[in-house]
Amino acid sequence: MIPTPALVVERSILDHNIATIGATLPGAKLRPHVKAFKCTALAQRLADAGHRNFTCATVREVEGMAAAGLGEDLLLANEVLDREQLRRLAAVEASVTLAVDSSEGVARAAAAGIRSVLIDVDVGLPRCGCPPEEAGRIADEARAAGMSVRGVMGYEGHLMMVMDRSERVSKVEHSMSKLLRAADDVGGELISGGGTGTYDTNTWANEIQAGTFLLGDTQYATLDLPFRQAIHLECSILAINPRGWIVANAGLKALGMDRGDPSWADGEVMFCSDEHTTLRPREGVGVELDQRIRLDPAHLDPTVAKHEEMWLVDGDEIVERLSVDIRHW
Amino acid sequence: MIPTPALVVERSILDHNIATIGATLPGAKLRPHVKAFKCTALAQRLADAGHRNFTCATVREVEGMAAAGLGEDLLLANEVLDREQLRRLAAVEASVTLAVDSSEGVARAAAAGIRSVLIDVDVGLPRCGCPPEEAGRIADEARAAGMSVRGVMGYEGHLMMVMDRSERVSKVEHSMSKLLRAADDVGGELISGGGTGTYDTNTWANEIQAGTFLLGDTQYATLDLPFRQAIHLECSILAINPRGWIVANAGLKALGMDRGDPSWADGEVMFCSDEHTTLRPREGVGVELDQRIRLDPAHLDPTVAKHEEMWLVDGDEIVERLSVDIRHW
Repeated sequence: MIPTPALVVERSILDHNIATIGATLPGAKLRPHVKAFKCTALAQRLADAGHRNFTCATVREVEGMAAAGLGEDLLLANEVLDREQLRRLAAVEASVTLAVDSSEGVARAAAAGIRSVLIDVDVGLPRCGCPPEEAGRIADEARAAGMSVRGVMGYEGHLMMVMDRSERVSKVEHSMSKLLRAADDVGGELISGGGTGTYDTNTWANEIQAGTFLLGDTQYATLDLPFRQAIHLECSILAINPRGWIVANAGLKALGMDRGDPSWADGEVMFCSDEHTTLRPREGVGVELDQRIRLDPAHLDPTVAKHEEMWLVDGDEIVERLSVDIRHW
Repeated sequence: MIPTPALVVERSILDHNIATIGATLPGAKLRPHVKAFKCTALAQRLADAGHRNFTCATVREVEGMAAAGLGEDLLLANEVLDREQLRRLAAVEASVTLAVDSSEGVARAAAAGIRSVLIDVDVGLPRCGCPPEEAGRIADEARAAGMSVRGVMGYEGHLMMVMDRSERVSKVEHSMSKLLRAADDVGGELISGGGTGTYDTNTWANEIQAGTFLLGDTQYATLDLPFRQAIHLECSILAINPRGWIVANAGLKALGMDRGDPSWADGEVMFCSDEHTTLRPREGVGVELDQRIRLDPAHLDPTVAKHEEMWLVDGDEIVERLSVDIRHW
């Protein structure tokens, strides 16, 4: 019996999601982003399906992927300026490419012994990335410092949740035009971008950094995508109050809450506390103490990052206990 | 040098907070709630200050506190119905008291070998707790099953953030009147309740389950309390964009987000991503790449639960690396 609270992953839906993305983005067209699931066993399933190049967000993710034998082509799609973190990264025995977006970043990467970089370009999301017109100069500096420059990346994260498909296409095109301009100046083979929300509308990048497609969440479920939600938070009913609410034994320490409360198929979520979620069952829904119920997380990535493990299941049967082994920094 | 992102705790403020609460709630009048900091080394500091009875929210917290030699009087202020979790709880070598709020809870606790319970009463927060008028019956059932009944608890969590002090007092009095009525029926010595927000206004409970006072967060800082914020999220500046924003290397995987974004003393928080926070410095604030800055978390408990460690510091000097050793379930 799976102890609650626990993340459970339905194998058949996982397989459906992997097959579905592979039909549009076979092999290296998809560079799965491990930040969404932080689990090398799930990354291995993607590698087995032909996607052997991965995207990481932290040094710890890079280290863990390399240790799991998945280090054929790891992109750390994030800047690193800290010298100790750069030292760790340079020590990883794998093929590692680091995102850089500044002269300082190039100088520090080179000094630490990083051999391969990619230029991170600001394509509209207010975060990291250099202005497109500076990308060529930064690439030149990297080459002058002895590093190979594999190309460019730009993440159009601000466009993932554009609901209307044709509006999404035109906005992604505008965003990617900045990346293509930078790519012309930079050279190299990689034009890396995208995410689950734009996996099939971003046809300008030549590899897509998607992660959420694998397990899903309620926010991505609002889009017109063919993926299904494979993950749920399994919990147990702790209390049934005569005033009409029930209490599940999982709360905001088990859920990423930045996009709001989880959802429940059989009623309303009233609120989450540290270790509880108070729910109001829909009329006619029977509940009993210690009964298992499943909540649907609003945001996958930070939800998974709160757990030591996930349980891969096939209906009522436990298939595998998955370690969430590349958490923290 | 502390690797970022990292939670840092200022020792002098920690000491101030411990001394301040002890002046109002000496010794056993305070039953510190470890869910707020999930760290036995910090619990030891509270024990050293005379508070040797603790409140826990999970079986893992109870196990960890016992293993750390802090098991003199542990209250699991939460229901447990799962038989495996009850077995673990009964196996803990410490004095453990479990909250119960139903006949089923009593029966399962007794069957698992739990020896001591306390009756959890609904005092207005829609969560666990029996109706006040049922508390006496549940206590009788527990005694009939051979367990000792130490008293009652009721958490007025819905009143923690009542801003006006006199309004808070009158609402807490109304809430606690339900608990006192239940206490009359139940017997036993404990009337347990309260939290940081009502630590000095709840004069009806005879022990207070406060935790947030120790480290603080921006939400509790809005109340008229004498505690100061001892904890910050230290991060490093990863990017400075000519369009006016900067990016810190810590985001919503390092912060409890259920009460919204963190705060920054030197400017505006624009938004948090998984591993980044985008900030707009106030005019005149100078920033440089890799500079350290500190964000103030909005909600302490889930923030700490995301970290493996905290760093106790005295200004620039590292005093101790604190393991967040009682996380998960």
